[in-house]
Parts: sequence; structure tokens; C-alpha cells
Amino acid sequence: MVQTIYLAGPDVFLANASEITERKREICREFGFEGLFPSDKEASVKIDARKIFEANCALMRRADIGVFNLTPFRGPSADCGTVFELGFMFSLGKPVHGYSSDDTCYSRRVEASDGPVTIRDGHSYDRNGYEIEDFALTDNLMLGNAISKEGGILTTFKETAGEPLAALSAFRLCIESLPRGLMG
Amino acid sequence: MVQTIYLAGPDVFLANASEITERKREICREFGFEGLFPSDKEASVKIDARKIFEANCALMRRADIGVFNLTPFRGPSADCGTVFELGFMFSLGKPVHGYSSDDTCYSRRVEASDGPVTIRDGHSYDRNGYEIEDFALTDNLMLGNAISKEGGILTTFKETAGEPLAALSAFRLCIESLPRGLMG
Repeated sequence: MVQTIYLAGPDVFLANASEITERKREICREFGFEGLFPSDKEASVKIDARKIFEANCALMRRADIGVFNLTPFRGPSADCGTVFELGFMFSLGKPVHGYSSDDTCYSRRVEASDGPVTIRDGHSYDRNGYEIEDFALTDNLMLGNAISKEGGILTTFKETAGEPLAALSAFRLCIESLPRGLMG
Repeated sequence: MVQTIYLAGPDVFLANASEITERKREICREFGFEGLFPSDKEASVKIDARKIFEANCALMRRADIGVFNLTPFRGPSADCGTVFELGFMFSLGKPVHGYSSDDTCYSRRVEASDGPVTIRDGHSYDRNGYEIEDFALTDNLMLGNAISKEGGILTTFKETAGEPLAALSAFRLCIESLPRGLMG
């Protein structure tokens, strides 16, 4: 049995989303996995948010593994739809893994997207005075810890030529590092 | 038995987080619930990200209900730690509800935080060319649909005087709308 991987990420919002999907599907195949994408649904589903939601939940329940594109999206953190799905699959007890084309620490990300960071009494604050988590992690502590908890893999690789949001290099690294997909 | 509510949100990053926590705890009590907060942990836990993660997961498993502060945080979307927890509790089959001090649609939020939005062939794109979900929702479709799926409540109320990130008015509206907390 080939193991199936649910592949979540903000790359669905790219203009060339279907091309990126095909490349990721091919990389999965190369390493003995079958990639399941949120967009693997009837075209007619696209107009109805509830149906997309239901289809994604059904795919996540069906998949053996979850692999999440945690590249920052519209701010210093991962895409919140992707993160919802990470919480969903982690809670189901499925193996979860992540990848990102951005390896900078969270504090620097906040600075890059939000402006100057202030340090006071050993704590960092953004320009609104909101404290910045400081655990030398790349994003909110719930994400990385969910992945590492059961021995998941989190790869980062800066995209120099390709689209940073697709994070194809980090994706390839992640998939080739997974325990091989051929079971039984 | 008084029902317990896990109260997730980015308000933990406010300078007066403990004051906001106390006010929310009091509102829970007023309506017959017990509020459980991610910060309800040993002070010593604060220095260890893994321990905070474990403590939050344990609290979520213990709570009867989840109530999530989905006010935008450092960008157009909800805080990703909060969203992880929404996915986690939804997946466990617990009732989930949300509140926010921002009722603007997602497209406008992107415009406000990221700059001009372009419309082409009936679709909206941000300044990086990434498509903007257009379902007249306030955030990624996974969030609102998880809440509405089992009849959860999502309240919005603009804070005029208080701290927008605490969203105390919307919080109160949400808690007072919940089915009453006294069971058995």
C-alpha cells in the first residue's frame, strides 16, 4: 500500500498553483508516496466555501500523513488555513511534518513585516507593544512543537530561483527525509 | 457540573495580559462557566516552549468547550497559535466558538495590512499576485466553517474604547450567547 500525504499550504493561492501541485505530486511519487491536495476536488466545489471545507476535512481524515507548507504568508506567520489543518491532523494522531523557504527566527520576521522591535527587560515587543514569543523558533511555539512531538520533520531551505511561497526545495528535502512510503 | 471553556487568543501577548485574563474569567463565571487559560500553568513552565505546548494540549483535552479570539494579529488573519488550537479542538469533536473585534471582510483586511488589491477577471489578488479567497468571509474559510459546522457561535463587535486585541465586548457577546453552562 502506498501511503497518502495530505499536502497543505498557501501555494493554492499562487497564479500557477496547478503547476506547483503537479511538481509536488511528482516528487511524492518519486519517493513512493501519493500526494493528496486540497484542490483535488470537483471544479464545481470551488464556488462553495462549506463544500471546500468538508472536502478538505474528508481528505485529511483519509490521508496517512500530513505535510504542511509553513512558509510565512501575508505576515510573519504561516497561513492560518494551513495551521488549522496542522492542528486538525495532529489532534487525529496522524504523523505531521513541515517545510518552509524561510528559516529566520520569529522576532526577525515580525521586524521584517511589522517594523522595529523593542527590547525591554529581556523581552521583545512589536510596534503595537505586543510581546514577541522568544524561544528561538521560526513561528508560534504550537506549530514546531506539534511537529517535533512525535518525531516529525521540519525542513527549511531558502528558495533562490523559484517562487518562495511554493518552497519546492524545502518540500523535496522534507519528502525525501520521510520514512519510505511502501508499507506491507 | 460547571462546564469548562478553553480560552485561546493572542491576548496573552498584551502587556496587561493577566488583567484581561481576570476580566474574561469573571465574565465566564457570570454566565455559569469556568474559564481555562493557556497561562493557567506553573510559572516555571514559561521558560520551556515544549512544556507550554504540552500544558496547552492537556488543557484543551480537559476543557468541555473552546472559545477562540480570532481578532487579526500581525497581519490580516487570526493568530496562528490560536488557529492551531481551533483545529485541534474541532478535530477532537468539542464545541468551538469564536469572537473578534474586527468584522471587516478578508479582502479589506489584506488591503489594510498589505496594500492595494487588484481585481482581474472577477478574482482579487494581493500586491504579490497571490489570490485572495473571496467568500465574503472575514478570514480563511477553514476557520468560520469549523465554527458553524456544529452550530458554533462567531460574534464580532468593534472595540471603541478598550484594547482591540482583547475584544472584550465581542467576548462577552459570545459567552452570553452560549447554551448555559450548568449541566446535570
